[in-house]
Amino acid sequence: MLTANPQLTADKKLKHLLTTEGLPKKLIEQILETADQFVSVGDREVKKVPLLRGKSVFNLFFENSTRTRTTFEIAAKRLSADVINLNIGASSASKGESLLDTIDNLAAMNADMFIVRHSQSGASHLIAQHVKAGIAVINAGDGRHAHPTQGLLDMYTIRHYKKSFHNLSVAIVGDILHSRVARSGIHALTTLGCPDVRVIGPATLIPSEVERMGVSVHHDMHRGLEGVDVVIMLRLQSERMSGPLLPSAHEFFKNYGLNAEKLARAKPDAIVMHPGPMNRGVEIESGIADGCQSVILPQVTFGIAVRMAVMAMVTGN
Amino acid sequence: MLTANPQLTADKKLKHLLTTEGLPKKLIEQILETADQFVSVGDREVKKVPLLRGKSVFNLFFENSTRTRTTFEIAAKRLSADVINLNIGASSASKGESLLDTIDNLAAMNADMFIVRHSQSGASHLIAQHVKAGIAVINAGDGRHAHPTQGLLDMYTIRHYKKSFHNLSVAIVGDILHSRVARSGIHALTTLGCPDVRVIGPATLIPSEVERMGVSVHHDMHRGLEGVDVVIMLRLQSERMSGPLLPSAHEFFKNYGLNAEKLARAKPDAIVMHPGPMNRGVEIESGIADGCQSVILPQVTFGIAVRMAVMAMVTGN
Amino acid sequence: MLTANPQLTADKKLKHLLTTEGLPKKLIEQILETADQFVSVGDREVKKVPLLRGKSVFNLFFENSTRTRTTFEIAAKRLSADVINLNIGASSASKGESLLDTIDNLAAMNADMFIVRHSQSGASHLIAQHVKAGIAVINAGDGRHAHPTQGLLDMYTIRHYKKSFHNLSVAIVGDILHSRVARSGIHALTTLGCPDVRVIGPATLIPSEVERMGVSVHHDMHRGLEGVDVVIMLRLQSERMSGPLLPSAHEFFKNYGLNAEKLARAKPDAIVMHPGPMNRGVEIESGIADGCQSVILPQVTFGIAVRMAVMAMVTGN
Repeated sequence: MLTANPQLTADKKLKHLLTTEGLPKKLIEQILETADQFVSVGDREVKKVPLLRGKSVFNLFFENSTRTRTTFEIAAKRLSADVINLNIGASSASKGESLLDTIDNLAAMNADMFIVRHSQSGASHLIAQHVKAGIAVINAGDGRHAHPTQGLLDMYTIRHYKKSFHNLSVAIVGDILHSRVARSGIHALTTLGCPDVRVIGPATLIPSEVERMGVSVHHDMHRGLEGVDVVIMLRLQSERMSGPLLPSAHEFFKNYGLNAEKLARAKPDAIVMHPGPMNRGVEIESGIADGCQSVILPQVTFGIAVRMAVMAMVTGN
Repeated sequence: MLTANPQLTADKKLKHLLTTEGLPKKLIEQILETADQFVSVGDREVKKVPLLRGKSVFNLFFENSTRTRTTFEIAAKRLSADVINLNIGASSASKGESLLDTIDNLAAMNADMFIVRHSQSGASHLIAQHVKAGIAVINAGDGRHAHPTQGLLDMYTIRHYKKSFHNLSVAIVGDILHSRVARSGIHALTTLGCPDVRVIGPATLIPSEVERMGVSVHHDMHRGLEGVDVVIMLRLQSERMSGPLLPSAHEFFKNYGLNAEKLARAKPDAIVMHPGPMNRGVEIESGIADGCQSVILPQVTFGIAVRMAVMAMVTGN
Repeated sequence: MLTANPQLTADKKLKHLLTTEGLPKKLIEQILETADQFVSVGDREVKKVPLLRGKSVFNLFFENSTRTRTTFEIAAKRLSADVINLNIGASSASKGESLLDTIDNLAAMNADMFIVRHSQSGASHLIAQHVKAGIAVINAGDGRHAHPTQGLLDMYTIRHYKKSFHNLSVAIVGDILHSRVARSGIHALTTLGCPDVRVIGPATLIPSEVERMGVSVHHDMHRGLEGVDVVIMLRLQSERMSGPLLPSAHEFFKNYGLNAEKLARAKPDAIVMHPGPMNRGVEIESGIADGCQSVILPQVTFGIAVRMAVMAMVTGN
């Protein structure tokens, strides 16, 4: 018998959101359907629902990310929760307190939810295993491992524009090796039944044995984009641009930057996605980022709704 | 035909607040009258009105200013808005994202209002031109250009103590050249019909051709303060105190610091203002700052009400 | 006639909370009883009461402490207050503004309460003497002087487990000299009638004439713990570990770290407390920190309720 999935309750409801790997298809679909209802909240005059009123949500960012922290803060506030932002790098960690002592302390303040960003893979799992029943943990990015709300908002966006995953070809392009966004997207896509997921990048930035995840590998971007419905571009971290894995940012753009000529290989109605923040002119041409096939800003809008859905579900709503 | 005022809607209502320059007299008066109603909110047991409930207000501070950020945060919270503080210097900017990409992202999160502080003149204009209808931009200080809510709270304060602008003499003293406070005050005063606005300071700190703004220039503070009703002292930035434009802070105080002897040249009931934070003993003597003619702290109180008024008006309330 | 206690109103109600020294027994008991009611709020589905709705509470942290700031922020939000966090080290202080000018400014924004953390002893007193009637000041730690909410939450915890103070022996162990936690605890314990308070530590870390505070001094921890009901361990600041007052952290643990063998000297049902954050292996063995006698996490939970009680009382609720 396998270890029970730590993300699920005994009756298969969402308890934590740690990774899209192993997340049942039904649950992913339920998250996307719940998000549907929250998309409209963002358009209202009063963008608030009382689902999490009186709940204490802690944004625990051990790694700085104003953008991601902001999306969770907005989502929680629109659910009427009390939000506490903790930039932990600057506090207890520097006083030599252990991660789990920090968690125990905040839990003792009657926390209801931890949103966790950490540079080490597995940090959210460790916390989820440690906290007592009734406290939910949402992984907001752990090392190279997972960024499940990004993966789910990508699924929401694809479903919104393409309706179904069943006949879809999706290409993920760039630094696959270091990307938790790629990993979370691949697991969600294969679970939802997407039959053709391709990863495209230089050999130095593709994990070995990535085919085991159910994807095909392309080093030639022109061929890799042939006939795809969805192009997901990844951010190239600046530390990679002049590192040993790449000759230069310029060279990278030439081979793996998305421009009109390469995008022409995809289907005419293909959509272009990017998790942000973009390096214009490095992984994506400005004209494409702002072009009619780009759905990069709708991704952001849907991201708020998906995070609201996850928060509502892990608190039993 | 001139370009339409980017601050106004087609039917001349306040859409953004970017500068007091060119702001119609009627609108300034409407802001001051709206603020009247909010002054009393600050005295209530429950200091809250629900006008901005469910609105998402982003404090975008590309330049650090806890004091100004706090006034906007309080104003927004007393209007029941959800407030998100973003110190952008420390986040996306450092990831190389462009200003407008940052704005587009936050707008995609269904933002209702951006409060913008930026070291570059024109940043708020740029953002206001860029955002879609329904999102309001309030300039909280851009470079040397404008600080319109400070200008308006100064007008509120003057009107509160002097009732009318029509027979008033107002002196603005100090580093006029680098002061967005001075610029915003001068535009508002002349629009409101103040017949005698004087700027006083050393030649090195007075902009050339400042007379075009409708003010007279004085280098001798004793003569400049003769018979004025209002003295607005400006903060001397510390980087100016020992720079090439001034011999020393001590010398500056001797010539342009406000003390009892110089203040005696003004009318006996003249009021003394300062935007804060003060350098006691540099631009103003401590006894004057705390004296019976000082209205420096009422300026702060009125500032909250004026910011509430502007926020309420740009969101259509 | 003595100077009136600055913490009390004319009719002996709590106006500010600055120190446990001189705080009347009746008031301490009233705080603990009020906290009783708030403990249950933390367990509710909706952890909120409207007592401070529309009040503006300023967390003024001139010294960084995310942990303490968080406890006050949560307490204030559960009372429905609007909370403004100000890390003053990074703002006005750096612009050369004086402490009292900063306070005057925030007070002019219609502040209702200041929570003050400052590295200088007496900062909260200074502020409390300065502010006008209707503004409450709560000391969240000032230099080596006092940390009264910590002292009171320690009393709450002891009363919770031991019911009464009348036959109790309490030992406080470690760096007494630099500890505001020790000082606030000792004053509260003696006021509540605890007959036997012992301080235990090396001679270099015990204040001279500490006996005047009504405690006995022990340098031998084994003898000091003999028969006590409560053991309060103090945090050893890292700057002390290799300083002139101590040979080494290892040596300190050998002599004054709490382990099973030393704890066996206390009563079998003795409780172990620590204000956090802990240095496991320096002042306390991990097994003891997590053991069945440890009430370190309940201290945190009770701390929120005690802070809610103090906030409610100083605002007249």
